[in-house]
Amino acid sequence: MVTTVIGIGLLGGSYALSLRDKYPKMHFIGVDASDVHGRLAVAKGIVDEVLPMGIAIPNSDLVVLAVPVNYIVELLPRVLDLISDTATVVDLGSTKQLICEVADAHPKRHRFVAAHPMAGTENSGPSAAFRELLPEKNVILCDCEKSDADSVALVEALFKDIGMKIHYMTPAEHDLHLAYVSHLSHVTSFALGYTVLEKERDEQNIFDMASTGFSSTVRLAKSSPAMWAPIFDQNRENLSRALGDYIEFLQQYKTFIDDRDIKASVDFMQRANEIRRILSGIDRK
Amino acid sequence: MVTTVIGIGLLGGSYALSLRDKYPKMHFIGVDASDVHGRLAVAKGIVDEVLPMGIAIPNSDLVVLAVPVNYIVELLPRVLDLISDTATVVDLGSTKQLICEVADAHPKRHRFVAAHPMAGTENSGPSAAFRELLPEKNVILCDCEKSDADSVALVEALFKDIGMKIHYMTPAEHDLHLAYVSHLSHVTSFALGYTVLEKERDEQNIFDMASTGFSSTVRLAKSSPAMWAPIFDQNRENLSRALGDYIEFLQQYKTFIDDRDIKASVDFMQRANEIRRILSGIDRK
Repeated sequence: MVTTVIGIGLLGGSYALSLRDKYPKMHFIGVDASDVHGRLAVAKGIVDEVLPMGIAIPNSDLVVLAVPVNYIVELLPRVLDLISDTATVVDLGSTKQLICEVADAHPKRHRFVAAHPMAGTENSGPSAAFRELLPEKNVILCDCEKSDADSVALVEALFKDIGMKIHYMTPAEHDLHLAYVSHLSHVTSFALGYTVLEKERDEQNIFDMASTGFSSTVRLAKSSPAMWAPIFDQNRENLSRALGDYIEFLQQYKTFIDDRDIKASVDFMQRANEIRRILSGIDRK
Repeated sequence: MVTTVIGIGLLGGSYALSLRDKYPKMHFIGVDASDVHGRLAVAKGIVDEVLPMGIAIPNSDLVVLAVPVNYIVELLPRVLDLISDTATVVDLGSTKQLICEVADAHPKRHRFVAAHPMAGTENSGPSAAFRELLPEKNVILCDCEKSDADSVALVEALFKDIGMKIHYMTPAEHDLHLAYVSHLSHVTSFALGYTVLEKERDEQNIFDMASTGFSSTVRLAKSSPAMWAPIFDQNRENLSRALGDYIEFLQQYKTFIDDRDIKASVDFMQRANEIRRILSGIDRK
């Protein structure tokens, strides 16, 4: 079986590394806009060779789209044009609605499976890829009823074989939930990093006074703007609502501080504490 | 040497555990409002015995105040009343201005040293204490010129011996910087947890879709309201300004999303990315 991974970064690279462990005979072709990343991916054993898209895709059984979501939208129709009739295309993008709409407009839509593995780090590029990223994590598949049964079966089998747990929902549900559980936390973290940098001009102070608590909260502020700007843009309606909700709660909490309303402040934090119960175990996911 | 730790929780307990490693002959007395915590602290080997404050303090060479900051303000005058003339009192509170003002009003002010170790986790109580919490971390001392030289020397020596790095600043500087680098990140995390719980009512969805990124950003939302409400209240002016700044930047960013201004969105994130350079190494602190 020949698998082509388009975009050999953190996610595409980690997926390939996990698959290689399970399927030593699978042949991996990498496609990447960056020659440096391509060479690094071969050197790191992520893929066997790097080829231009037009050569790689017609000879592949599986094509994995692991580029930023704006490029997925751009490349998906071209990839579907190029595949053989029996090949399967899967994307790993963090948004699903626009990507599925683009797929729906293509005559080979039935060979496409829309997927989103719930995993990542604040790092990017092939050097950030590691085989432990995906196992034990969740992956969401959308609109499977629009895909051929054999394509879904292949994609499901591969995710399961590398130890992922599969969930199913519509693209609209996916994007709404992700706005709250993922995209919002990225924005709050970017804004925290931005505020501290703008207002706390003495960098030595930041370094000396930052505890691991600050470091944890601001970790996602290190994430790649090239990856996240198009995600936020594609999911702008849900994200804008989530951000509006968040700002409203923050303003509410600020009045508790200003009014010295300790009881309201404690109640607010106690409600937030309930996240502990829900998340227990997430760090081990 | 006899050391009394008032409040044998995460911080007081971890401090005692670190000191015991370095000074096996030091005798540790615990004082705690909770009998359960007191018994647990003895069972865990954090302190040798638990005694009432009025008995423990007059016989101690060092008294460590490691209770929530509202209780530090309440207890500090009573502790200074009770100590022998040669004993030293140190507090480990997360605010410094009000605590130092309270100390300044006491005739034995010169036996007091104001300290804040920059370390913690989202957990609390003696069962959360561990000997690795403080080593390698930073600690800030305030207003040392108001303390006797021998008291400062003792407190510095103990922090240094357990591997901490000491910094000096005024209480006003401390509280201002901490508002941005610590208190703000706690509030943003509490508000993130609160928003997701309020708006994403299906807890299974939160669990399934939350990645380690969300988990990291929301970690501090698990923190103790009883500890943080008084910190936020004592530092309300600085925190309110920091929160106001943060909300303003968030609103700005929301307009970039609503206006689909990708360039402004990327610029904002790239500025936030600079936190990576400053924090590199913090996670190992």
